[in-house]
Amino acid sequence: MTNTTFKSPSGASNVTSVLIDAIRKTVGNKGCLLEPDDMAVYLTDRRSALVRSAPLVVRPATTQEVSEVLRLCHEANVGVVPQGGNTGLVEGSVPDISGGQIVLSLSRMRSVRELDVSNATLTVEAGAVLADVQRAADDAGMLFPLSLAAEGSCQIGGNLSTNAGGTAVIRYGNARDLVLGIEAVLSDGRIWNGLRALRKDNTGYDLKHLFIGSEGTLGVITAVVLKLFPKPQEQLSALVAVASARDASNFLSRCQRACGENISSFEYIHRNCLELVFEKIPGSRDPLDEVYGHYVLLELGSSTPGTDLRAVLETLLEEAFAAEEVENATIAATIEQSNALWKLREDIPEATRITGTRIGHDVAVPVALIADFLERGSAIVERMHPSARLIPFGHMGDGNIHFNMVAVDDAHGASFLEPESEIRRAIYDLVHEMGGSFSAEHGIGGLKKSDLVAYRSPVELDLMRTLKHALDPKNILNPGKVL
Amino acid sequence: MTNTTFKSPSGASNVTSVLIDAIRKTVGNKGCLLEPDDMAVYLTDRRSALVRSAPLVVRPATTQEVSEVLRLCHEANVGVVPQGGNTGLVEGSVPDISGGQIVLSLSRMRSVRELDVSNATLTVEAGAVLADVQRAADDAGMLFPLSLAAEGSCQIGGNLSTNAGGTAVIRYGNARDLVLGIEAVLSDGRIWNGLRALRKDNTGYDLKHLFIGSEGTLGVITAVVLKLFPKPQEQLSALVAVASARDASNFLSRCQRACGENISSFEYIHRNCLELVFEKIPGSRDPLDEVYGHYVLLELGSSTPGTDLRAVLETLLEEAFAAEEVENATIAATIEQSNALWKLREDIPEATRITGTRIGHDVAVPVALIADFLERGSAIVERMHPSARLIPFGHMGDGNIHFNMVAVDDAHGASFLEPESEIRRAIYDLVHEMGGSFSAEHGIGGLKKSDLVAYRSPVELDLMRTLKHALDPKNILNPGKVL
Repeated sequence: MTNTTFKSPSGASNVTSVLIDAIRKTVGNKGCLLEPDDMAVYLTDRRSALVRSAPLVVRPATTQEVSEVLRLCHEANVGVVPQGGNTGLVEGSVPDISGGQIVLSLSRMRSVRELDVSNATLTVEAGAVLADVQRAADDAGMLFPLSLAAEGSCQIGGNLSTNAGGTAVIRYGNARDLVLGIEAVLSDGRIWNGLRALRKDNTGYDLKHLFIGSEGTLGVITAVVLKLFPKPQEQLSALVAVASARDASNFLSRCQRACGENISSFEYIHRNCLELVFEKIPGSRDPLDEVYGHYVLLELGSSTPGTDLRAVLETLLEEAFAAEEVENATIAATIEQSNALWKLREDIPEATRITGTRIGHDVAVPVALIADFLERGSAIVERMHPSARLIPFGHMGDGNIHFNMVAVDDAHGASFLEPESEIRRAIYDLVHEMGGSFSAEHGIGGLKKSDLVAYRSPVELDLMRTLKHALDPKNILNPGKVL
Repeated sequence: MTNTTFKSPSGASNVTSVLIDAIRKTVGNKGCLLEPDDMAVYLTDRRSALVRSAPLVVRPATTQEVSEVLRLCHEANVGVVPQGGNTGLVEGSVPDISGGQIVLSLSRMRSVRELDVSNATLTVEAGAVLADVQRAADDAGMLFPLSLAAEGSCQIGGNLSTNAGGTAVIRYGNARDLVLGIEAVLSDGRIWNGLRALRKDNTGYDLKHLFIGSEGTLGVITAVVLKLFPKPQEQLSALVAVASARDASNFLSRCQRACGENISSFEYIHRNCLELVFEKIPGSRDPLDEVYGHYVLLELGSSTPGTDLRAVLETLLEEAFAAEEVENATIAATIEQSNALWKLREDIPEATRITGTRIGHDVAVPVALIADFLERGSAIVERMHPSARLIPFGHMGDGNIHFNMVAVDDAHGASFLEPESEIRRAIYDLVHEMGGSFSAEHGIGGLKKSDLVAYRSPVELDLMRTLKHALDPKNILNPGKVL
């Protein structure tokens, strides 16, 4: 048998025809993509549109196949990039520029392994699309609460690898909080079966939390046991107009005191966001008659039938009006009205994308400091980039703001992005000073590695490197990501 | 300077007079206990009453002192046993039999570093007693929900090191779910400051979850940022009598469907538990007129003022009576009545202890399998140990049962305990077969190490050993515990 070495753009890689044959033998032809056209979608980063190359894209159908592929790559010293729906925003799921890394897509592993309604758990494979997971729970009369913009194409394994956030974190927590157990394949191909469906288990170190959020650099998550929740019986959305981010923050405190356990979303929206949506998204319109500076999209939910959320909310709003904290509000009277309010919120990223001039920051600060951050951050941008139009919005209830901006007019084009790195540094410096995070829900990937080094202590970085080295000594799992 | 080696019971240890002097210089005389009488309480295991020896007990007053002590011990290759309130149940916080390990007590580090009501966070040092933490939250009009029998003396650092459970897990989660950030000292004395008060932070590996639940074997937790919650505005307790554990389990499902988010406790109590309390605890009496086989102590809570929990519960009970799932119930009409119901539950461990013949198991299975487990476990005990009286109770809502037993009559004495290890193995085998955990909330410590080896896969054990070796290569942190 002739063994030829695959020519990567940067020179020879460790991928040989013998390795490719062995992988093909393991996963079958269906599981092995070698043609550029077939591979393109797996090699293109969604956010930046950059396109990478790879000798092959492997799509195993079982955990056993993942195990065998990793064993082979480990033996051959070949880097493997685990990939879910490839919807991440930090270049974490595409190969590096070497062209020598193999993409391991979980997309064929999407079975529901077990649905246990009385234990309120759902065991699914990593490649299951989030919307399908939500649907499986819903069909069983339960709720899987993880909810985010990419839910129609992102995969649950990717959600866990990146510890996804989204709009329901205030009530249900981040992705890691929604998991009881995982199955993962280690760098050398060994399978760790930690698929325990237990609410309590103190038998040694909690290994699942090590793999969750590690962005595929410590192991490949192949299946998960998810927690399900009672479906909300009552739900109510309202768009609340306020004069300032500080009023929004005070209104959040009021809501938390009055009905903390019923808040399922508390989203902040700057007026500029709505205006951008009205401009860019056909058919969108202002739900309120007058113009206000800032908004809160609030959702209350209760799984106890008969809870009068409307009465709760009306009392809340009356008190907030009396305190001059709130300027106007509209409570959705129908599900259609509620959907229309949420569509406005969900259209913001798309409207931003259309401008082609987005500078974005996914930051978090302690919840109490959100208004401070918005004031100080806005001042920085006004000073450093006068042609920027701020588009800040996000999960105020979690202290997490997507502090974004676009060009005042589209004519600016690419030149608008020139000061991006300086602005980024100034905003991250501010966030850091406030005890915050420069990546609240998006992760590190390939994009934010230098920020991790800049804002995390040498001890913390050393701990992370120690873990990486201990679990993946040959550095074959998503090499060059995170660390 | 003369350097003498400390004589441990098992021979020479690495503790020298030079090391002791250096430690004394670091922590002062007040922080250094050397007299057997002073050390006794730190060297005695609460559960078993076994007494260990140590060259000294160190009580640092600051993180910096902990760091310096660990640096010295690391250099000298001396084992260090981190200790909180020393209330654990698995011999995890006392030294091993060598007599050469130093106890590091966190009990002098009990300051509140920061209370931030609008961020709903409390930053405290590891030695703060849980009841004091609860009180600090309460004084600020908030709730810190971790609640367990030892709360008057256990410390928050120990609670996190062991990922404590307790009675409010069904609503608020285990100890690890109540934490946003930690500060820990590593085996070589370096300090990791991870005291971030953020609800979202995806910047690299989640290191806090590695230290939480690792029982002091990977690092010493010195301070924590805790999540606070809105204080319940309405609360209601009821004792519900049922004919079988299965009925209790069905009643749990009914409650979860009807008012899942309002259940703050769902405790199962076998009739034998109440009888034992009536026998052993003066002044206790049956709240119901008739005798029933099994009970549920249910607590509902709501932080939304005006929620009519009584109406919710009455509807629930009516439906359960109609379905013949419930035989009788008493709803506490006053806070005194509620306290009396809870006292019965809380007296069970003490009544059991008084018998001097306890065989206990802290096990968990998937919630849906609790009734199965109780049936099959009881059959095993009836067969293997006819003179045992089953005393099963616990956190049914979490799938966690304290599957305990005492001698039918106290005359049995020590001989009753003879088949303990065989029964333990049979019960753990059953739990394992049912996908459960042999240590739901108590941990591994020194007591359950062989069980960890028996019931966890070689891959899982190897992962744990890899982590231990990576973070504590000289094996000086709580040596001989967990692994």
